[in-house]
Amino acid sequence: MMKSIEASPLYPIANPKSIALFGASNNASSMGTSLLDSVLDLGFEGEIYPVHLKENQVQNLKAYRSVLDLPKVPDLALIVLPTRLVSETMDACGRKGIKHAIVISGGFKEVGGNGVELEKDLVAVAKKHDMRFLGPNCIGVANPRQKLNTTFMVFEGGPGFIGMASQSGSFVTQMFTYLSDYGLGFSTAFSVGNEANIDIVDCMEYLGACPDTKVIALYIEGIRRGRAFVEMARSIVPKKPIVAFYIGGSEAGSRAGLSHTGALAGPDRLYEGIFRQSGIIRARSIMEMFDYCWILGSLPKSTGRRVLIQTHSGGPGAEAADACGRAGLELPSLSPETIKRLRPLMPHTGSISNPLDLTFAKNVTDYFSEIPKALLEEKKADCLLFYFFTPSRRLRRMLRQAGVAPDHIAEQAAKMVDFQSDAVLRLIKTHDKPFVGYTFQSVTDQLLKRLVERGVPIFPGPERAARAIEAAYRYRCLRDKILVSASHKEAASRQETDRGWTK
Amino acid sequence: MMKSIEASPLYPIANPKSIALFGASNNASSMGTSLLDSVLDLGFEGEIYPVHLKENQVQNLKAYRSVLDLPKVPDLALIVLPTRLVSETMDACGRKGIKHAIVISGGFKEVGGNGVELEKDLVAVAKKHDMRFLGPNCIGVANPRQKLNTTFMVFEGGPGFIGMASQSGSFVTQMFTYLSDYGLGFSTAFSVGNEANIDIVDCMEYLGACPDTKVIALYIEGIRRGRAFVEMARSIVPKKPIVAFYIGGSEAGSRAGLSHTGALAGPDRLYEGIFRQSGIIRARSIMEMFDYCWILGSLPKSTGRRVLIQTHSGGPGAEAADACGRAGLELPSLSPETIKRLRPLMPHTGSISNPLDLTFAKNVTDYFSEIPKALLEEKKADCLLFYFFTPSRRLRRMLRQAGVAPDHIAEQAAKMVDFQSDAVLRLIKTHDKPFVGYTFQSVTDQLLKRLVERGVPIFPGPERAARAIEAAYRYRCLRDKILVSASHKEAASRQETDRGWTK
Repeated sequence: MMKSIEASPLYPIANPKSIALFGASNNASSMGTSLLDSVLDLGFEGEIYPVHLKENQVQNLKAYRSVLDLPKVPDLALIVLPTRLVSETMDACGRKGIKHAIVISGGFKEVGGNGVELEKDLVAVAKKHDMRFLGPNCIGVANPRQKLNTTFMVFEGGPGFIGMASQSGSFVTQMFTYLSDYGLGFSTAFSVGNEANIDIVDCMEYLGACPDTKVIALYIEGIRRGRAFVEMARSIVPKKPIVAFYIGGSEAGSRAGLSHTGALAGPDRLYEGIFRQSGIIRARSIMEMFDYCWILGSLPKSTGRRVLIQTHSGGPGAEAADACGRAGLELPSLSPETIKRLRPLMPHTGSISNPLDLTFAKNVTDYFSEIPKALLEEKKADCLLFYFFTPSRRLRRMLRQAGVAPDHIAEQAAKMVDFQSDAVLRLIKTHDKPFVGYTFQSVTDQLLKRLVERGVPIFPGPERAARAIEAAYRYRCLRDKILVSASHKEAASRQETDRGWTK
Repeated sequence: MMKSIEASPLYPIANPKSIALFGASNNASSMGTSLLDSVLDLGFEGEIYPVHLKENQVQNLKAYRSVLDLPKVPDLALIVLPTRLVSETMDACGRKGIKHAIVISGGFKEVGGNGVELEKDLVAVAKKHDMRFLGPNCIGVANPRQKLNTTFMVFEGGPGFIGMASQSGSFVTQMFTYLSDYGLGFSTAFSVGNEANIDIVDCMEYLGACPDTKVIALYIEGIRRGRAFVEMARSIVPKKPIVAFYIGGSEAGSRAGLSHTGALAGPDRLYEGIFRQSGIIRARSIMEMFDYCWILGSLPKSTGRRVLIQTHSGGPGAEAADACGRAGLELPSLSPETIKRLRPLMPHTGSISNPLDLTFAKNVTDYFSEIPKALLEEKKADCLLFYFFTPSRRLRRMLRQAGVAPDHIAEQAAKMVDFQSDAVLRLIKTHDKPFVGYTFQSVTDQLLKRLVERGVPIFPGPERAARAIEAAYRYRCLRDKILVSASHKEAASRQETDRGWTK
């Protein structure tokens, strides 16, 4: 492990104070200009030095004919040039004294043929100048806290706690809005490209040390340094969870090979083993990967797989119970003390069992406060799975039925949403037990939006919720296993020392 | 099969011209009043006769002390009274000459004990008067085309093509907004409750004959008339698909039993067999049930399971390929003719294979028109799976980069969305092959919203899309099997007739 995050070659790449940019021009539709747009759009606060052979100005910034002309040595070179120009540009950067680069340009190893040689050249040039670089054939870095977005996509949303390293740039940039819809975001996301110099293991090390990263997400098509990967993961997992989505073989391979899926069985099982050994939680899809990140990054540590379900509707309760069962979770029965606490809060039609089914939410106050409180305090359970059904039209009708005058309904509805969200947030704050929501509504609904923006995981449908709860439990088990094996090793080596058996 | 839909006992229940309502009052928070609110909110255009022992007016409608006082015989009685009053009310309705009722009230068989007797009484009373009724312990009917909503929830959204019969009322009412978000809706939805008189098989018969219903959705906790169920399904499936979500045992049973999931293996397998024999597509969740309905109700009939994938991004393409493989779909390679057609439309970085990966959408026009056209016309494939990534901020930036003046960007962006949606809709109209979208964006995004509102299925993530495509193919196979078996039977019986073997 590194002493500090600043020791990582990725530190200046994700946190540069100044950037030399190669490839931006006054042609608005070029990739390089797109990238400069991205950097400017997010409000990067450091210096930007466009380097351009002919222009004095690029997009209103002073441009330089050569990197050697720059008034200072920038922290980072960002290169979006035609393939044939990349190595000589890197060399110039090296001569200037730049130590870090992102090579966006493609046309290297991934195209085969001469590209393989070009990539070897690039690696050699970097080595000569003691430079570290991300790429080639990547789309760079998004670090929204530093207002840095070197991808050619518009950044949307805000910073979050998910640190990502991805072998597909799309799964960084094309998930910006998806994550933002659920109140999630990246701490820092790396697109690793061909991994010619810096690889996914380096990214894991950086993200493991990154204080803003609570959980690490990996999109993997192939692991190059197997042993280093496992060791790095095992050193990180005791402190923070890692979730991976792997789809079997290389991207090209999966494209060609999937018509006969049998061909993938080998590598898939191999990777399954690597992940298990590494303590990494495997997801089956990109959305599931972020589901797992959501629950792992926002909730108290799982203590087990015993789940209580709170609902006011039979069908959604039964489906949640079924989903929990299929995900390998347990539904304990309620203890006599909890039943006693719940009885006065339940309508007479309700069912005081697990799922707890109010049959209809007579007292909205209790549904969001006293009832989930009693369930969170049930000693026989590890987690509460809570059903949300709160469309705003329904709320307005309830208020009308409760006798609220028409011109006060909007105001009262807003108060109700305040009350409900405050109640849920208070519960979460005062109880050290996972609270997980599920719903069939859109998270754009007033109450849900407010809650997801404040970090409460509310999943579309109980299946995703149940699988995420199980993943959180799986993380605990994998983590414990690594800690136990580490402490055994330590104990063994202590014993050897005691007996004077050290070499 | 019935001669016409009007012959169904459910016809007057789903299409009443006049309703007698028992249980509404001037107490705004009572269940009966909620229900009256629902009927009025949706703008029911028939007559409503509230019956109330004491009031002259209920919620501004003239009220009657007894059903016998009504000026005419209404088509439907809607009963939301305390359990003990239901039978005598049914009897009065019968004496008045009312032939159809919905009994919302609970407290019957589902609570056991005396409730069982009360339900027997209710059935006897109905029989005496030759009445048919839905319930008890149900939440009634939603038939938005008739502006009829007898549930106590606010109706949201519009009419659609999904006919539903549900053993959970929640899966009718609590899905209104969910369906509406995806441009879907119910033709008619029944909550069947205890099925004391009309059962789910009757609902299937009605929905099978209903011209607005393109696909039937069933939420099932237990089937009472097994043989009738199978026969009814087999008579419907050749004309329209049926999708069922079954979660194993009764709702109460699944609630109690799921902590030891093994207990459910028996009935689950039994139901699996019933569904297969019936030609019914089984879904694993309520959302998946509606996914299947979406694709089955909105697309041309599946002709096979060979899928082409169009994307401009490696990761999303690889994930889609993987999802197709896991769903049991095939990814054929492109024919030389298609490759020839595609070559001039593709950027040089793109990969002309399956998935077709443009690597980046250089020409937005082609992405939405010529390219998918070539793929839809590929003879080696049965379906196109199409990736959407069109956040509006990205579109605005592309326009800016293309040199559009800042004050024309909004207008141009709107035109672009028009162009894209028109292009997709034209493709669908002119090709008799399923076009299925997938995306990671929210369907509230401009382009996606417009397309889903016009009936284009665009799924969240490729997994749901792939499983839905496979379900459409499964429907075709199950349907063919039933047709073949029916024609064998017919041929056999013809042969018997020919040989003079008829009884």
